[in-house]
Amino acid sequence: MAYFDNVGKIQFEGKGSDNPFAFKHYNPQEVVLGKTMEEHLRFAVAYWHTFTGEGSDPFGVGTAVRNWDRYSGMDLAKARVEANFEFLDKINIPYYCFHDRDIAPEGETLQETNKNLDVIVSMLKDNMASSGKKLLWNTANMFTNPRFVFGAATAVNADVYAYAAAQVKKGLEVGKELGAENYVFWGGREGYETLLNTDMALELDNLARFFQMALAYAKEIGFDAQFLIEPKPKEPTKHQYDFDAATTIAFLQKYGLADKFKLNLEANHATLAGHTFEHEIRVAAINGMLGSLDANQGDLLLGWDTDEFPTDLYSTTLTMFEIVKAGGIGRGGINFDAKVRRGSFEQDDLFLAHIAGMDTYAWGLKAAAKLIEERVLDSIVEDRYRTFREGIGADIVSGKATLASLEQYALQNNPIKNQSGRQERIKLMINEIIYSV
Amino acid sequence: MAYFDNVGKIQFEGKGSDNPFAFKHYNPQEVVLGKTMEEHLRFAVAYWHTFTGEGSDPFGVGTAVRNWDRYSGMDLAKARVEANFEFLDKINIPYYCFHDRDIAPEGETLQETNKNLDVIVSMLKDNMASSGKKLLWNTANMFTNPRFVFGAATAVNADVYAYAAAQVKKGLEVGKELGAENYVFWGGREGYETLLNTDMALELDNLARFFQMALAYAKEIGFDAQFLIEPKPKEPTKHQYDFDAATTIAFLQKYGLADKFKLNLEANHATLAGHTFEHEIRVAAINGMLGSLDANQGDLLLGWDTDEFPTDLYSTTLTMFEIVKAGGIGRGGINFDAKVRRGSFEQDDLFLAHIAGMDTYAWGLKAAAKLIEERVLDSIVEDRYRTFREGIGADIVSGKATLASLEQYALQNNPIKNQSGRQERIKLMINEIIYSV
Amino acid sequence: MAYFDNVGKIQFEGKGSDNPFAFKHYNPQEVVLGKTMEEHLRFAVAYWHTFTGEGSDPFGVGTAVRNWDRYSGMDLAKARVEANFEFLDKINIPYYCFHDRDIAPEGETLQETNKNLDVIVSMLKDNMASSGKKLLWNTANMFTNPRFVFGAATAVNADVYAYAAAQVKKGLEVGKELGAENYVFWGGREGYETLLNTDMALELDNLARFFQMALAYAKEIGFDAQFLIEPKPKEPTKHQYDFDAATTIAFLQKYGLADKFKLNLEANHATLAGHTFEHEIRVAAINGMLGSLDANQGDLLLGWDTDEFPTDLYSTTLTMFEIVKAGGIGRGGINFDAKVRRGSFEQDDLFLAHIAGMDTYAWGLKAAAKLIEERVLDSIVEDRYRTFREGIGADIVSGKATLASLEQYALQNNPIKNQSGRQERIKLMINEIIYSV
Amino acid sequence: MAYFDNVGKIQFEGKGSDNPFAFKHYNPQEVVLGKTMEEHLRFAVAYWHTFTGEGSDPFGVGTAVRNWDRYSGMDLAKARVEANFEFLDKINIPYYCFHDRDIAPEGETLQETNKNLDVIVSMLKDNMASSGKKLLWNTANMFTNPRFVFGAATAVNADVYAYAAAQVKKGLEVGKELGAENYVFWGGREGYETLLNTDMALELDNLARFFQMALAYAKEIGFDAQFLIEPKPKEPTKHQYDFDAATTIAFLQKYGLADKFKLNLEANHATLAGHTFEHEIRVAAINGMLGSLDANQGDLLLGWDTDEFPTDLYSTTLTMFEIVKAGGIGRGGINFDAKVRRGSFEQDDLFLAHIAGMDTYAWGLKAAAKLIEERVLDSIVEDRYRTFREGIGADIVSGKATLASLEQYALQNNPIKNQSGRQERIKLMINEIIYSV
Repeated sequence: MAYFDNVGKIQFEGKGSDNPFAFKHYNPQEVVLGKTMEEHLRFAVAYWHTFTGEGSDPFGVGTAVRNWDRYSGMDLAKARVEANFEFLDKINIPYYCFHDRDIAPEGETLQETNKNLDVIVSMLKDNMASSGKKLLWNTANMFTNPRFVFGAATAVNADVYAYAAAQVKKGLEVGKELGAENYVFWGGREGYETLLNTDMALELDNLARFFQMALAYAKEIGFDAQFLIEPKPKEPTKHQYDFDAATTIAFLQKYGLADKFKLNLEANHATLAGHTFEHEIRVAAINGMLGSLDANQGDLLLGWDTDEFPTDLYSTTLTMFEIVKAGGIGRGGINFDAKVRRGSFEQDDLFLAHIAGMDTYAWGLKAAAKLIEERVLDSIVEDRYRTFREGIGADIVSGKATLASLEQYALQNNPIKNQSGRQERIKLMINEIIYSV
Repeated sequence: MAYFDNVGKIQFEGKGSDNPFAFKHYNPQEVVLGKTMEEHLRFAVAYWHTFTGEGSDPFGVGTAVRNWDRYSGMDLAKARVEANFEFLDKINIPYYCFHDRDIAPEGETLQETNKNLDVIVSMLKDNMASSGKKLLWNTANMFTNPRFVFGAATAVNADVYAYAAAQVKKGLEVGKELGAENYVFWGGREGYETLLNTDMALELDNLARFFQMALAYAKEIGFDAQFLIEPKPKEPTKHQYDFDAATTIAFLQKYGLADKFKLNLEANHATLAGHTFEHEIRVAAINGMLGSLDANQGDLLLGWDTDEFPTDLYSTTLTMFEIVKAGGIGRGGINFDAKVRRGSFEQDDLFLAHIAGMDTYAWGLKAAAKLIEERVLDSIVEDRYRTFREGIGADIVSGKATLASLEQYALQNNPIKNQSGRQERIKLMINEIIYSV
Repeated sequence: MAYFDNVGKIQFEGKGSDNPFAFKHYNPQEVVLGKTMEEHLRFAVAYWHTFTGEGSDPFGVGTAVRNWDRYSGMDLAKARVEANFEFLDKINIPYYCFHDRDIAPEGETLQETNKNLDVIVSMLKDNMASSGKKLLWNTANMFTNPRFVFGAATAVNADVYAYAAAQVKKGLEVGKELGAENYVFWGGREGYETLLNTDMALELDNLARFFQMALAYAKEIGFDAQFLIEPKPKEPTKHQYDFDAATTIAFLQKYGLADKFKLNLEANHATLAGHTFEHEIRVAAINGMLGSLDANQGDLLLGWDTDEFPTDLYSTTLTMFEIVKAGGIGRGGINFDAKVRRGSFEQDDLFLAHIAGMDTYAWGLKAAAKLIEERVLDSIVEDRYRTFREGIGADIVSGKATLASLEQYALQNNPIKNQSGRQERIKLMINEIIYSV
Repeated sequence: MAYFDNVGKIQFEGKGSDNPFAFKHYNPQEVVLGKTMEEHLRFAVAYWHTFTGEGSDPFGVGTAVRNWDRYSGMDLAKARVEANFEFLDKINIPYYCFHDRDIAPEGETLQETNKNLDVIVSMLKDNMASSGKKLLWNTANMFTNPRFVFGAATAVNADVYAYAAAQVKKGLEVGKELGAENYVFWGGREGYETLLNTDMALELDNLARFFQMALAYAKEIGFDAQFLIEPKPKEPTKHQYDFDAATTIAFLQKYGLADKFKLNLEANHATLAGHTFEHEIRVAAINGMLGSLDANQGDLLLGWDTDEFPTDLYSTTLTMFEIVKAGGIGRGGINFDAKVRRGSFEQDDLFLAHIAGMDTYAWGLKAAAKLIEERVLDSIVEDRYRTFREGIGADIVSGKATLASLEQYALQNNPIKNQSGRQERIKLMINEIIYSV
């Protein structure tokens, strides 16, 4: 059955089109830098925002008007599956992502919950086979239920930890069943409300043990997805342990897990941590930890995760620049972890918002490609650091230099001459590039 | 000669004293938890704020009225040395800290600069010998001079890097000469203004090389100070590489430097990074990286480093709690990296502000001692995590558990029962403890 | 029937008591500065957090365990009424506050909704008569229901505006029926998500018209409550029109409403707007607009309204200082617009949290009284501004001075001498005062 | 003599030009919406950043390399005058703005200071006559000198207040002499560091008296410039009284000054106060208070005033949209209160940065014009609020409605239907518009 009767398949109509239900920039088969846009961008739909989300906020209940609202329980879960595949087809997105509890309701017992899950997973599998759509990643929701009030893999209560372990075990099985390319850990409650009653050392040790067990089980069942950790600094916790990319890397290094995990970076999580998205991507990339992206944007004048659809061309251009320079997103993708505004409550908004995000990303990709092809930033950087490619600079980079040899050099090298960083000029160049593609 | 004629030696007069120039809580010889206050707190004066600072801000020139203002050049530098030792004596602080450029002016050449430095270092050494005062740490100012506009150990220009190396080489020699217990690296310009023209990977590699050279040279000259890195997220840079404790730890781990460095943590830097001070201390402690403290406080409604003298008892209590629980501050100390407000421009304010900071810290120490002696928080934490000391929890901690064994347990363990975290009650208890000591 | 069987009436046991269910500082009959504590503080319970709240957050469902959870619909509403009066009695709080939708569920139609409301209002009235408890204020919830997605009195849709008007009409009738001392307007959705689709001028004009109508109707029915507006800068909106005290005053002045309204100020709203609570109170007080307080506290490292119970003695001391200096809270009160943490989900936490807030406020009152009795800050301020009480300063204040007369004076008055503001010393004095009461 | 030998007159070369020293979008004579770009934009250069600024920050001294650095004292002041007019000519900007202390150094006495000022003012006047360049506004620097440590027109010391009055008196005379179109008050120190020692009520009363005196004197000497107040929330103060547009309006209304002043709004001040620039402009416009703009941009991840040159097209587009919709900037202008980054220290950067700002503003103007001509947002807004133009909505707007009549309507109007706000779609439309001009 169809849930989106008003909307046909979204077509590429190109620049100048007035059709709001058309791509102007995203053309899946268009080749950019030797790959199709589809291969570069690997878009995914976030099941929770698009099919489970209702438009509630801390001061208001849901506003969303959805054709599947007429159902409840498992019927609702099934209707959402159908809506998902209809949407993926019409919007031309190859991947989707979910938390276990997005797709099927919890039962009274874990047994019953798993049974519900099995029913839906089987239905997903059938739909994937017939549609060719794929699962970018799945994950476990270990934050909504009251049992996780003090964490899951960092719970203060071993019973909760055990429950979380059971849930992830099932999640890994589901991921294998559906051929997920990645498996994600977002520790929404892995952190603390107050240090006063928190044993941070024990909690972090337990978290590492949890990851070790998950790795072992994935190996045991032959599930070869890339494991991803998604940093966020806070919310709902006062402090989330995986604060940002660097913090997560420190944790993984400490516990010998660095070669087994990569990062799933989210734009709005970056800004909540005080970073640009491109910063987080760069940090991950130079540490060999770039996994996947949760694409959205925040409002920097607000202090919470607004998860807006990405429409800022500066951000998507620099994001795609970092991704392409890092060699691409690999097995990861660009998942729209974004929700339509509470005021965008009509079903059409789901299409319009994804089109806004996809077109803005496609546009950013084209701008990034131009930056790269014309070596705009590369030549600036090369020139700026040129002294490290010869003489004393080369000695520094090769490891030949010592404090004494450098002092020797410095004592006779007076005065030192720097050259302008030209930040204002570069920013105007970025404007010109974005608007020329 | 004397610069603080109006002020005699600060005495401990105890609670209830109305004398603003007296300690009410800090009594260096008072024994708390088996050590004297002086041993616990190891206070230090920051030379830059107290003797070099003038009370300027981005919109105003200096306001400070100082008796040594009548001098200039090397005479001024010498007057400040005298002021320093007179102040340390009268305020009863055993340590001081400096950047190289705080104590002696730069000359036209590095040679001349070093000569100026030598004159003052010799004078400091004499004064230390006669007074018994000690150097907690020294460091190099590699951020004020225009040459460091794009960094020092992460400069875009190899000539600047070489200069910085020469400066640190001299700093290590000075540290050795004066018996510094630590040597600090604060990378005020080690970061970037914009990623657009920045080669972050090269800069971080170069930073690691710089530290390796510094370690090698310290070893070569037999300078056995603890090396410390001081994290700060930003300011003056848009992004400082040593963003916070976790970020710095990630860097040190990556480059194999983790066992050679500890952290010098600053309260206001913690809050600029979005953390409490006690959070940063806990993170350092559980990673074996707790080195020393820069004591101050920020205004959380302002977005820059205000470096206020610490007067918040909640913060000093929890800081001292973390320190004592971590086994003490070791070779580090509590350095007042704090400046009198621009409006507190009289010399007396230097005394009053340090007394405010010292008394607030001493008070915090006593409150922390009571928290520890009465096991207030320890017993809460023990009870909260008790399930990890037996049964399935003990299996988790010992590494015996697997996802499968935990699932087995979870499937028959329904429902799970949590207990309240009692945050509001604990916060009131903290009030009662602080005000009972 | 009883919902709080485990807890008896909370008694004043005074400092040193170990009983967590006892006041150590709040003694309703204790006289401070000529009035009883009860008269000064006029505490109120917020019905929504305490009886309707469930402990949900944007990432998790409710955790609260409540004895009245066994009911639903109107039975639940009635059970909450009973719980409210039992709680007010046991905790010794004279006032409560509610939104219309806290106390009774919405029906299918406004008619049915009003009928539900009437049943509960009648029950409240009976309970108030028998218990002597009073209604500090009531208000209308015009933010939870989806119809208010774009505002109520600033809705983009006249139908919504009309609905909101009907709701406030009923609210004024209810307020009169229950003898409410104030009527509050918090414009949770009166603002915008994006200026791009917003007619701010029309919305503000409509808001003023709404207030005029409400004033007219209150007069018509003889409801003489003080009207209060509650500023908040944002959340759930991106921008709330009543951003802070000054913004609200500007609005009221522009539309000729300034003498008809006062402000209901909330601590966490103040900090979200970038102000201290005492700042907002001072602004209101010097504009004759101080109405009532919503007592809570935020976490300044987080960017959303955490509504924590107030336990910070610095804040409660300065709050009570401002209140007493302003001549008291008048017809307003101190309403605990605070929610127990999601992890403090047991019923006992409701008592413990209110005790924490009440004791911290009582303690703050005593500290403020000491500040005032000993003229600690008054004498500092008097001395600081003394030059405005004589000579040229008196001319300025009396309006006699002109630019020319002041220039005349300035030309011969060289140099100017300022004196230190002594901020660090004053902050330590505050510590000593809080400690000594 | 010439200070910018390398740079010729900046020409309009249009889109596609590779010349960094050329405008691609700004063409002063191009007609947009019936006026030339020059008439719309009324650009001004900020003397302080461009000719007096040195590139210092709180952690570093100046980096700027300027041809006039070879001079000092009054010779330097004169060289800067020449540089100013050469720059205005080459960059094709018709206006400039200054603080008194930017243009001439202070002397030992106010008499001497005024004498210095007179010399430079006379030189400025001659240059203006010969070049046709104009003074958009002047103002008094009452924040740099230590005497203003506790404010100027809100000083705690009447002597300081008198000095400030003398300074403004002179400023008004200078403004008249040079034909300034506006006179600005930015109260950089008019606020407080701590409420604990502050008499806010007296300070605000004194501030109002100060403005009254200034108005009287301007009238007396026949200086008919528009008076402007420039809001900023903080920095250097902890709290500046003119926090934002709304706060300043509240102040002006209270003291009966609202018809005598307008606002000089700054982008980075807006964001420091938690607002977008377009929000502040809208607030001023609907209150009839839109005066002039200080054009720059901040970094929303940093908490201080970075005063970057404006290069964000989203912001300039919406800024120009608000300005044009408000009927234009009137006697105000667009003053680049922006400084080249500390790393952009070469003279060429002064040109490149202004070109970046001017081109970005011209581009924004063209995009705004298209938004207006095609009624993109107007038609959205008209449709959204259409219910207020008929029936019950018209009754509301006309003032005919009452709570009772609206209740009557609401009781029979069920259910209410809203329509989507389409935020995501609108944002993508903005991208397309910016791109297409």
